[in-house]
Amino acid sequence: MDSLELMKSLAQPSPSKIILLVLDGLGGLPGPDTGKTELETADTPNLNRLAEKGTTGLIDIVSPGITPGSAAGHLSLFGYSPLRFTIGRGALEAVGVDFDLEPGDVAARGNFCTTDKDGLVTDRRAGRIPNEKCTELCRLLDGMTIENTRLFVRPVREHRFIVVFRGEGLNPGVSDSDPQQLGATPKAVTALQPEATKTASIANKFLAQAKSILTEQHPANMILLRGFSERPGFPAMGEIYRLKPVAIAVYPMYRGLARLVGMEILNSGTSLEDEMRTLKENYSAYDFFFLHVKGTDSAGEDGDFERKVRVIEELDRALPGLIDTGPDVMIVTGDHSTPAVLKGHSWHPVPVLLNSRWCRPDRVSEFAESACASGGLGRFPATQVMPLAMAHALKLTKFGA
Amino acid sequence: MDSLELMKSLAQPSPSKIILLVLDGLGGLPGPDTGKTELETADTPNLNRLAEKGTTGLIDIVSPGITPGSAAGHLSLFGYSPLRFTIGRGALEAVGVDFDLEPGDVAARGNFCTTDKDGLVTDRRAGRIPNEKCTELCRLLDGMTIENTRLFVRPVREHRFIVVFRGEGLNPGVSDSDPQQLGATPKAVTALQPEATKTASIANKFLAQAKSILTEQHPANMILLRGFSERPGFPAMGEIYRLKPVAIAVYPMYRGLARLVGMEILNSGTSLEDEMRTLKENYSAYDFFFLHVKGTDSAGEDGDFERKVRVIEELDRALPGLIDTGPDVMIVTGDHSTPAVLKGHSWHPVPVLLNSRWCRPDRVSEFAESACASGGLGRFPATQVMPLAMAHALKLTKFGA
Repeated sequence: MDSLELMKSLAQPSPSKIILLVLDGLGGLPGPDTGKTELETADTPNLNRLAEKGTTGLIDIVSPGITPGSAAGHLSLFGYSPLRFTIGRGALEAVGVDFDLEPGDVAARGNFCTTDKDGLVTDRRAGRIPNEKCTELCRLLDGMTIENTRLFVRPVREHRFIVVFRGEGLNPGVSDSDPQQLGATPKAVTALQPEATKTASIANKFLAQAKSILTEQHPANMILLRGFSERPGFPAMGEIYRLKPVAIAVYPMYRGLARLVGMEILNSGTSLEDEMRTLKENYSAYDFFFLHVKGTDSAGEDGDFERKVRVIEELDRALPGLIDTGPDVMIVTGDHSTPAVLKGHSWHPVPVLLNSRWCRPDRVSEFAESACASGGLGRFPATQVMPLAMAHALKLTKFGA
Repeated sequence: MDSLELMKSLAQPSPSKIILLVLDGLGGLPGPDTGKTELETADTPNLNRLAEKGTTGLIDIVSPGITPGSAAGHLSLFGYSPLRFTIGRGALEAVGVDFDLEPGDVAARGNFCTTDKDGLVTDRRAGRIPNEKCTELCRLLDGMTIENTRLFVRPVREHRFIVVFRGEGLNPGVSDSDPQQLGATPKAVTALQPEATKTASIANKFLAQAKSILTEQHPANMILLRGFSERPGFPAMGEIYRLKPVAIAVYPMYRGLARLVGMEILNSGTSLEDEMRTLKENYSAYDFFFLHVKGTDSAGEDGDFERKVRVIEELDRALPGLIDTGPDVMIVTGDHSTPAVLKGHSWHPVPVLLNSRWCRPDRVSEFAESACASGGLGRFPATQVMPLAMAHALKLTKFGA
């Protein structure tokens, strides 16, 4: 029996409420001067109080040494093993722009690119055109119907976009058109299995039309497609945990991931303040709240140690508003580490705190990487965060008689 | 290779001796006033000395967040993954009353119930009749022979009993007669597979006889059966670990579980003192001793924090007698937590101490939940307790050349 089956067999509905607060990229590394991480540098009296009364630990998102992407990070926190529950590139990009993929849709990741007069690719990213240009070009390509299949084209960022095919009998088993090298022509899309013949045909017709439509554009006079994939059929959190889960997230990627595991999505505004207000206003309607804070990760990616510290402090100041809602279980953690000194995601384990009246206290009175290393939860896989949350919310029956 | 196969391939007989002392439901949570758990509150100089000279840690019985039943707890301590080695309801209840299930037997859990004049169930528990009444009614039903199959009926507690079918060609693949709701008639038992036709027929004849025998009784005028199951075919500890294991337990459930993994069972009297004397008297005849102390769990289940503290202190005072036998490895732990504040089993990890001359010492000098959280054994699955015991008893050869 795997972990999700075990949860499904033990979960029982109850009025208790769980808040999972994810500070994206929370984990860090020491800055060069002080030897303290971003979280250790930040003044966080409210987080520390939660840690003191609760219990703490360190989580591995995938496994030690593995740097997770955003999808793996969040799926793991929701209890879905990221090695087992994977998402194709096209579907992930669609999810990332909040495109509501339906079962049967096939999504591909697109690049605007530059080709020369012979049709050879000279720049796979079309000089990283600005977002506005990308949006404008996507409008030119959007809205076709080919072989009774509707095509949706949506901008992502710079040269990146998605195309989604919606119709009967589609299949993602087709090859990429992206040659992945310069000086080559874009490749024809081919069916990798008989069921995908129609999809390959539609894709090639779309590529031909795009070539014609973009011919006068520069530098983005052609497109490349890759990562054809479907919406993954993940079991819904509501069925596994018997919860009514909801996502509160400003960024589309996180709403999209939440949608893939069956959460409802609330309109969450544009700021942490908006998110907090959204949660309070909807507190009575749900019993599991996934609240996502992006700023920590963005600052880490930018290598801005001080800004990451400030985002954490801002969150800490807003925390009493969240605590006042009175959840039975409150968890604060991250989906991966994003140390400012690395300017990107990293493999370092992520501090986690769990606060509930049924915690066994540990000696940790600070929410920080080094403190959590001696926390009562120990070091454990992130997929066990949800079972622990469920247990402390008294939402699980006994295993065996 | 799974863990038991690994043990079987590495274990070698030796004269060294292991004592596994299980304080049932040992783990706790802080009482409301002091912030200390039952174990932290208890004055335990002898346990502390063992912890100081040995090494400590915290164990997860099933996995983080999962609350185990007694069977899962003990199987895990004996090294059998509780997710893999499961026991059907009827078999577990039979084990729980010390009924020596034989291979081929089929056991079912029974309820005395109340039905009205139309045969509809009005109380699935017959008003929870007293134990004495249950015993009296079981005597009325015990001892039938149906289709060359002997039937054993034994009281459990209140309205609960077991029936065991012993004969040729039985099969547990039959449905329950318990409709699991009021206002319905008891259901006929049906074969869920062709091999179970005979068993279903016997069960239905037994139900008809029981109805006739109980017709004048009130409120227990009928029975319901469920959870038909066989004695599980677990590999024997003696074969896996090449040990001669023995169980010393006052309560039948724990003797029964020990029997399922092939331990010998000693007549252990009725008290901790009796158990200690039993161990001493039989010390030369075995090399693995499972010694079970029930009082900690009972006090926890009753929500009696102080009594649980006293049971632990009583055990601590008796401990020198055990230590004096001079085992090569002594382990003290629990099969799950039973915090008095929760009045039941819980998911919290269980402190464990391992004392042997081959321990690598840690900084822990106290046997308590918070101290063990920083113990040298770390936090680990309970199924690894036996491999650690075997290793410290120098009963395992090297893995690989």
